[in-house]
Amino acid sequence: MSFLSAQALVADDLADMERLLLKKVGSDYPPLTEALRGLVQSGGKRVRPTLVLLAARFHPPRERKRLLSLAAAVEALHTATLVHDDVVDGARMRRGRSTLNTRWTPASTIMAGDYLFARAAALAADTQNPRVIQLFANALSVIVDGELRQAFTARDWDQPKDAYYKRIYGKTAALFEVATRATAVLGEASAEAEEALRAYGYHLGMAFQIVDDILDFVADETTLGKPAGSDLRAGIITLPVYYFMQQPERRARLMALAEGDAHAQDAMGEMVRLVRESDAIAQAKAEAEMFAEKAITALEIFPPSPHHQALIDIARYVVAREF
Amino acid sequence: MSFLSAQALVADDLADMERLLLKKVGSDYPPLTEALRGLVQSGGKRVRPTLVLLAARFHPPRERKRLLSLAAAVEALHTATLVHDDVVDGARMRRGRSTLNTRWTPASTIMAGDYLFARAAALAADTQNPRVIQLFANALSVIVDGELRQAFTARDWDQPKDAYYKRIYGKTAALFEVATRATAVLGEASAEAEEALRAYGYHLGMAFQIVDDILDFVADETTLGKPAGSDLRAGIITLPVYYFMQQPERRARLMALAEGDAHAQDAMGEMVRLVRESDAIAQAKAEAEMFAEKAITALEIFPPSPHHQALIDIARYVVAREF
Repeated sequence: MSFLSAQALVADDLADMERLLLKKVGSDYPPLTEALRGLVQSGGKRVRPTLVLLAARFHPPRERKRLLSLAAAVEALHTATLVHDDVVDGARMRRGRSTLNTRWTPASTIMAGDYLFARAAALAADTQNPRVIQLFANALSVIVDGELRQAFTARDWDQPKDAYYKRIYGKTAALFEVATRATAVLGEASAEAEEALRAYGYHLGMAFQIVDDILDFVADETTLGKPAGSDLRAGIITLPVYYFMQQPERRARLMALAEGDAHAQDAMGEMVRLVRESDAIAQAKAEAEMFAEKAITALEIFPPSPHHQALIDIARYVVAREF
Repeated sequence: MSFLSAQALVADDLADMERLLLKKVGSDYPPLTEALRGLVQSGGKRVRPTLVLLAARFHPPRERKRLLSLAAAVEALHTATLVHDDVVDGARMRRGRSTLNTRWTPASTIMAGDYLFARAAALAADTQNPRVIQLFANALSVIVDGELRQAFTARDWDQPKDAYYKRIYGKTAALFEVATRATAVLGEASAEAEEALRAYGYHLGMAFQIVDDILDFVADETTLGKPAGSDLRAGIITLPVYYFMQQPERRARLMALAEGDAHAQDAMGEMVRLVRESDAIAQAKAEAEMFAEKAITALEIFPPSPHHQALIDIARYVVAREF
C-alpha cells in the first residue's frame, strides 16, 4: 500500500481542507493572494494534514469544520516555515521549482512568510479549542527554536547526537507531533489515546527528517530539485555526517577537506561523496527505521481499522521513500 | 498630566507584565534568550500594554494572570513586527540604538522575529479565551497585510488617502484596536462597552501613526535616532506627503526631484525640506487631532474615573508628543 492509497481514505476531507486553505490565504491584495496560493499549491504531498485527518478517525471531533481548520493550520504553518527557511538559506530551488526568493525581494518574502504564519494562527484559532491553540503556539516556538539552533550550530562538527535530535525535533517532529496530538485533543480522546497519537506523530516526524537528511546525500539531483549534499555544504551536521565522524580517521579526512585550501576546488563535493559512499548512510537508515517502528508500536492500543492500517502504511512509506 | 503619570495608575500590573514578558521570551539557548531579552527591554514606552491594563479597569477580568498574558502578548507581537520591519527596511538604527540587524545576520534576525511571533502566540493562547485568540490572530493578518501593502505601494505617488489609512491601520491601529477590544472581551464587557473600547483603540492608533509620520519630517535626528524623512527616502507616501501633493505645482516640483538626474545630489534632502516647511504638516496634525478626539468621544459611555481620565490623557499626549 502506497502513501497515495493511505491518503485516499481521507480524500474528501483533504479536498475540503484544500479549499479552506486556499480561501484562508486570500488577502484583499491580489498579487499577494496569487503568490500565496501559488505557494500552498506548489506540490507538497500534504503529509501533515493527511495525518490529522486519519488520526481524527479514531475520535471524530463533533464539528468537522474545526477539524478541517486544524488540518489547514498545520499545512499553512508548514508552508510558512518553508518560506522563511528558503530566505534564511538563500535557497533558489525547492521541489525542483524556483523559490519565492528568486522572484521577490527578501523583504517581501519575509512578509509573505509572516502572512502565512498569521493565517496559520487564525486557522488554529478557528478550532475554538484553547488547548489545541496552546499546543499549536508552543509547537511554533519549538520550530523556530530548532531553526535558530541550526543556524547557531552550523559548522560545529562535534555536536552530540542529542543536539541533532533536538534540531530535527524542532525542524520536523514538533509539527508532526502537534498534528496528531491536537487532533486527539479536538476529538476529546482519553489521555491514553492522546499520548498514543502524540507518540506516533513524534516518532514519525523524527523518522521523516532522518530520511530527508539521508536523501540529501543519496537521491539524485533531479529528484531532489537541488544539489546533493546541500546540508553539508551549508555546514549543517545531519545524522549521516554524525555517524561518518565516529571513526577518527574518517573524521580527520573530512576535517582536512573542510579546512582545506582553495586548491581543493571541489572539497565539498568530495566530502559529500565520502559520506554518501560510507556505511554511515545505512546506520542512519537503521535509526530512521527504529523511529518508524516506535511510531507503529505507539498505535497498538487501537483496534485494527482501515485508518489504523493507513497510519502504519505511512510510517513504512516514510522510511522506504526515495524522494 | 503626562503619559508617565497616566501609566503610574497601573505601575504594579505593568511591572508584573514586564516580568512575565521576560520570562516568556526565554529559550533554552542562552545567546538567543539574551538577544531577545535585550530586544524587549530596548526602551519602548510600553504604550500598548498600558492601554490593556487601563482598559481592564472598566471590566476587570476574573483572572489577573490572563490579563497580564494579554498585555505581554500585545507587547511581544509589537516587538516581533519591529524586528522584521528593521530587516525589511534594512534599518540600522531604532530609538537611537543599533538594530539586531547590525549585529546578527539577516537570517538570524528573521528567526529571532519569528521566535517573538511564536511567543506572542503562546501568550495570547495563555488567555485561554478563544475569542481573544481569534481577534489576536486576525490582527496579526491585518498587520502583515499592512506591511506588504507598504512594500508593494512604495513610490506609487498618487495613492488615495484611503490607501494610506489602510496601511497605517495595519501598521499601528490594528494592534491598538485589538489591545483595548480584546481586554473588553476578556473582562466579559457588554457589546456596547467592547465597541467603545475598540473604537478608542482604533482611533488612538490612527492618531499615533499619523503623528509618527509627521515626526519623521519635523523631529530632529538625535531625537528620532535616524535620518529625518526616512519614510519619504524609502518611497513610503505618508499623510504629510499626500497633503503636499494636493497642490499641482507642489506635486510637479516633488516629482521633478524624485525623477531628477544624479546631478541633483541631495534631491531627497530637498524633498524632505519642502514637505517639512509646508502647511501639509499642519493639515496632517489637524487630522491626527481629529482621530484623538474621536478616541476620547468613544469613551463617553463610561462614567468618570481615574482610568477613564488616564485614557483621555494618553490620547492628548499622543498628538502633543514631540518624539
